[in-house]
Amino acid sequence: MNFNRLTSTRRVIGVDIGGTQIKLGVVQGSRILIRQVLPTRPVAASPDRLQKHLAAAVLKLARDARLHRPAVGVGIPGLVRSPEGIVTGCANLKGWNRIPLKKNLERLLRSRVEVDNDVHAMTLAEWIYGAGQGADSLIGLTLGTGVGGGIVLGGQLYRGRRGSVAEIGHLPIVWDGPACPCGGRGCLERFVGNQEILRAVRSDLRRGVRTKLRALTEGRPSRLTPEMIDAACRLGDPYARQVWAGAGERVGWALAGVVNLLDPERIVVGGGIAKAGRWILEPMRRTVRQRAIRSLRDVKILPAKLGESAGLIGAGLLARGVGA
Amino acid sequence: MNFNRLTSTRRVIGVDIGGTQIKLGVVQGSRILIRQVLPTRPVAASPDRLQKHLAAAVLKLARDARLHRPAVGVGIPGLVRSPEGIVTGCANLKGWNRIPLKKNLERLLRSRVEVDNDVHAMTLAEWIYGAGQGADSLIGLTLGTGVGGGIVLGGQLYRGRRGSVAEIGHLPIVWDGPACPCGGRGCLERFVGNQEILRAVRSDLRRGVRTKLRALTEGRPSRLTPEMIDAACRLGDPYARQVWAGAGERVGWALAGVVNLLDPERIVVGGGIAKAGRWILEPMRRTVRQRAIRSLRDVKILPAKLGESAGLIGAGLLARGVGA
Repeated sequence: MNFNRLTSTRRVIGVDIGGTQIKLGVVQGSRILIRQVLPTRPVAASPDRLQKHLAAAVLKLARDARLHRPAVGVGIPGLVRSPEGIVTGCANLKGWNRIPLKKNLERLLRSRVEVDNDVHAMTLAEWIYGAGQGADSLIGLTLGTGVGGGIVLGGQLYRGRRGSVAEIGHLPIVWDGPACPCGGRGCLERFVGNQEILRAVRSDLRRGVRTKLRALTEGRPSRLTPEMIDAACRLGDPYARQVWAGAGERVGWALAGVVNLLDPERIVVGGGIAKAGRWILEPMRRTVRQRAIRSLRDVKILPAKLGESAGLIGAGLLARGVGA
Repeated sequence: MNFNRLTSTRRVIGVDIGGTQIKLGVVQGSRILIRQVLPTRPVAASPDRLQKHLAAAVLKLARDARLHRPAVGVGIPGLVRSPEGIVTGCANLKGWNRIPLKKNLERLLRSRVEVDNDVHAMTLAEWIYGAGQGADSLIGLTLGTGVGGGIVLGGQLYRGRRGSVAEIGHLPIVWDGPACPCGGRGCLERFVGNQEILRAVRSDLRRGVRTKLRALTEGRPSRLTPEMIDAACRLGDPYARQVWAGAGERVGWALAGVVNLLDPERIVVGGGIAKAGRWILEPMRRTVRQRAIRSLRDVKILPAKLGESAGLIGAGLLARGVGA
């Protein structure tokens, strides 16, 4: 790791592709100098459309920022083959089956482009600038629509043979659980992903469970959001606290296995659901402390520090070749 | 990795401590020039007694082989803190709580001693000389009284922060499963360890299940051995085949999680139960192929090649500093 490179003031362009938004920005170290947000929906119809749209936006941003052929880093919520930058699957976007995103964008932009999984980018950002600073080994975890992971081992982002690794959301936790788009069954993500939690709570609401969420949704379960569950927790609602506690326990249980395999120094938790803060983090910590091998229980489980900027900052690090 | 060192003809002493036997030998590369076996029981009363007994045996072996202060490698079925060689726990031997085995033996032998977990040693042996040769990433797995693991990543034995890693037997597979001595609950080993399988089959026999094992045990379930289950499989007994298939599926399920995390190139399976061969390997392979992320299913799952010598050969590699 060349730390001069880390403190470099080189400005690069970072792109963080999400199911709802595409964020892009001019990134310098941990600072985001210019930030733009595009809705994903209008261009999500095909990878081709999204790539062309994205390339145009990046070219415009580069012009505005007076950057000549800047290095570009892209995080995408899918399986990415490294170092080729080929997207082999993407849960929230259609048609991303063996799309050579790196090569395509390099052709369109005439710049060097690095592509990786978005949670790998987030992990890199938290490791270099956030809650993972100084750790020799680190697990990055995001809880949101999907459950993603990143692994830093021996001072390097672990990419394995071909990049698609650290899929913590696809650790199997229930033998006869529901089928998962990944091809497996009973994956963690099928129990603690945003949609799955909302679905379960809505079903409980319809069955008449006692909870302040009834008032918060004004009696319409379809209006339920994760933020309402947080609000109910703060209001002391036992049902809502149990929702996050149950999710935290399941995540903690899967993490106990990761700890028993890899003995990481820290685990950094980010993503939308992680906003629930201690309501989910504490049960997660408690479960790891109760379930991992005794001598490995000292792993630190911390909330991510960089929030929603982690994706862009991580994409900037990818652009600079950090973690390659 | 210095491959000159690997082909060195230096003779070292390897020690493989097991719950039943202590094997020791003069090892040269993949060859075991002299091999001795001591029963563990008579010296297992305390770590102190075992260490003194072992040191005496090693000194005698060195004298017999005309080795002056040979390098010594020791594999032990427990949690070993690296590089200090402190045994922090050992499932099959009493009193091994923070025993500085490396330091103690070095003092007694006046030789350099390296100590590691026995399955780490086996993994090293299979990687350098066995079924794992040439792999850049490898999972070693032993199925026997215990279920152990070793991990090779990026051409190195992975030891994590302090050596106690790759505990595949302690991947949790059933949330409300039985408590495990490791401190966890529902660990893989609690379902597919030798003793657990024998206990379950004996209970089935007592309840009158139809199987050739009834004849093979001469109607006395207490006589049941894993070898009898293998024999019944060869005789076409559907019950016995289901016993190994069930174990293979559970192991395969846990391995699917390991594959989704680390994308290893190969998985090498050894240990006593692995003698059941295809009866357990095929269901294991099938489960990984059905349950891991689609793009990662090409991992090769192979039987170990070095058999019962893997422990000694691996201890010899430890002695030579390979994998350190």
